[in-house]
Amino acid sequence: MTATVSLLTDFGPGSAYVGQMHAVLRRLAPDARVVDLAHDCPAGHVEAAAYILRRSAPHFPEGTIHVVVVDPGVGTSRAVLAARTEDAYFIGPDNGVLAEAAADAEVRRIESRALMAVEIAPTFHGRDIMAPVAARLALGMDLAEVGPRAEPLRVPPQRDLEAGGVTGRVLLADHFGNLVTNIPFELLAQVGGPGGAVRVRIGAAFIDGLVETFADVAPGRALAYIGSGGNLEIAVNEGSAAEALGLGVDTEIRVEPGSR
Amino acid sequence: MTATVSLLTDFGPGSAYVGQMHAVLRRLAPDARVVDLAHDCPAGHVEAAAYILRRSAPHFPEGTIHVVVVDPGVGTSRAVLAARTEDAYFIGPDNGVLAEAAADAEVRRIESRALMAVEIAPTFHGRDIMAPVAARLALGMDLAEVGPRAEPLRVPPQRDLEAGGVTGRVLLADHFGNLVTNIPFELLAQVGGPGGAVRVRIGAAFIDGLVETFADVAPGRALAYIGSGGNLEIAVNEGSAAEALGLGVDTEIRVEPGSR
Amino acid sequence: MTATVSLLTDFGPGSAYVGQMHAVLRRLAPDARVVDLAHDCPAGHVEAAAYILRRSAPHFPEGTIHVVVVDPGVGTSRAVLAARTEDAYFIGPDNGVLAEAAADAEVRRIESRALMAVEIAPTFHGRDIMAPVAARLALGMDLAEVGPRAEPLRVPPQRDLEAGGVTGRVLLADHFGNLVTNIPFELLAQVGGPGGAVRVRIGAAFIDGLVETFADVAPGRALAYIGSGGNLEIAVNEGSAAEALGLGVDTEIRVEPGSR
Repeated sequence: MTATVSLLTDFGPGSAYVGQMHAVLRRLAPDARVVDLAHDCPAGHVEAAAYILRRSAPHFPEGTIHVVVVDPGVGTSRAVLAARTEDAYFIGPDNGVLAEAAADAEVRRIESRALMAVEIAPTFHGRDIMAPVAARLALGMDLAEVGPRAEPLRVPPQRDLEAGGVTGRVLLADHFGNLVTNIPFELLAQVGGPGGAVRVRIGAAFIDGLVETFADVAPGRALAYIGSGGNLEIAVNEGSAAEALGLGVDTEIRVEPGSR
Repeated sequence: MTATVSLLTDFGPGSAYVGQMHAVLRRLAPDARVVDLAHDCPAGHVEAAAYILRRSAPHFPEGTIHVVVVDPGVGTSRAVLAARTEDAYFIGPDNGVLAEAAADAEVRRIESRALMAVEIAPTFHGRDIMAPVAARLALGMDLAEVGPRAEPLRVPPQRDLEAGGVTGRVLLADHFGNLVTNIPFELLAQVGGPGGAVRVRIGAAFIDGLVETFADVAPGRALAYIGSGGNLEIAVNEGSAAEALGLGVDTEIRVEPGSR
Repeated sequence: MTATVSLLTDFGPGSAYVGQMHAVLRRLAPDARVVDLAHDCPAGHVEAAAYILRRSAPHFPEGTIHVVVVDPGVGTSRAVLAARTEDAYFIGPDNGVLAEAAADAEVRRIESRALMAVEIAPTFHGRDIMAPVAARLALGMDLAEVGPRAEPLRVPPQRDLEAGGVTGRVLLADHFGNLVTNIPFELLAQVGGPGGAVRVRIGAAFIDGLVETFADVAPGRALAYIGSGGNLEIAVNEGSAAEALGLGVDTEIRVEPGSR
């Protein structure tokens, strides 16, 4: 099987920035298959991209080369990294976006000038540094060729319960207006009150208990559930939670023990 | 020729939900070619998706496996279906979205647990049930393997003229602000007054007669025409009908005999 | 290496119009690899599409067949062209969109009815004329088969300095709210005052000097820089210039000698 390259960016869908990365990959590694993982990541939102990457990578074939261009520091002295785990390669800026997916990885700084484009745009390292390196890895180049070893990636410390509950934030609002939070199901499981019940607070409003799926509540009603990425999500059945509840990326969410 | 899989969803372009379905397909059926049919379907709008599917499927190669994830009832007891016509395979929820494209198809309920993901997210059967089944069909698995036979799909009854005219609705508003209605050209042809002329009413406004293309009217003027999908469409030349006429998905449209 | 076909449209990302063009290409030229160059071009904005095409084409493999469907005159008597340069093929409407990328090209009018779809929608020549021709070129058909020779494409005259400065416009606003202008770096280089400094005027506001990248200014501050496509761009570090400065496509931009 030929190599798979995945692209995760905040360039917006349909953008020529994405198209140019595809072009570079096709030119340098014509047999690689390029998959668009996501391009609707909120602009510059490293935590949202890290979540998408970590929760999506396991669905890809072994050996996939994931390229992540959510890179508000592009053109500064921040390093560009390439990492290898047992399952996959990861390429992206040294801003934490790779840390959760590439924990325990061998990490290197991409410094070999010969691998990069002849001219490097200071605002587009995705096209001029990351895509060419991904293409060479797809062709079988050894990771060591990219540059010197770097420190292992520091995974952000696991959050703990505070005062019996957990406070998080909205990471993503999807096309339905469903809201993905940064509260993973493992943490949620520790919050549960009697019978494991929780109450989800959003500003002055709250949702009692978790359900499985949208239709478990009446149309127009809000629900809380473990989303397909494993984190707490908030939705409105047959509606938009973003609109109905006035929520957006970075809105604070609090989960407390419930009484049911 | 290797298998073609098409994806039609309401996930929104650039969504990781789409990317994860691509990932599953690439992992399980690495040689299949996956085509994004459309991802901008209005959320949960089964009729719009059915229209897109029926009008687009004939453009695909024979044997294409169409996966349709417009599925507001995801996670409930509604069945997931796989169907085979002479030309293509269709996979989607049992909510009517496949009926028009897969009329006369052999239909089966997807029930074979072994074909599905080990863990099935109650809100993402597209990734955990439909994509894996599509991958196996792409690899040559017989349709009968998915599960027991189901009733043939019921095609919604053809609408008839009412009081000499026809009343429909806007199905889709495209990137130009052009509006695709659910009134097919066959029905439109029955409405015509003297000389086959029609008048299209939108609220208090109306458009007299059909034209062929945008530039048949002056810039800024509204036009009605048979769109590239075969249904009545409404546009504004060099403008947006959605904005100029204040129309959106589900706005009512009435076609009556014209006098020209 | 199998042929590469690129698609550049103003159909909007996730649109079934794009999906149907992919379908036609897959059906007629199953081994071709189709790359989505961009689909978020402002509707009907020929100059923006021409910019994207010219600045993106060099990143593609030699021999790529670029299909450009930014075509407000679709269905009128305007010709559809196919052109061949030393590096690539270009297919698109005769509205100037190909001129800069395909200067010095052999140009032909697509007139061979046998190459087109059996039924041609007057509003979708991308699907019914351009995609089928692209597929045949991907299969190795000679350019001469498409139709008679046409006049070489007229490249718009290079703009000159006026009163020591240059006046341009915003071509594109990207997902970050960064604004790409139609002022190329070559022209900008002629404007520079003492030490090569420039001042960029946007209405009553101005930006003094060019920087390399976003983080060269404080968060929330506006910057002017040469973008990754080679033209002047305006952005706000960690923000949206489109929102912060109230700019959009076609806003006028003036560059004058600076005093720094």
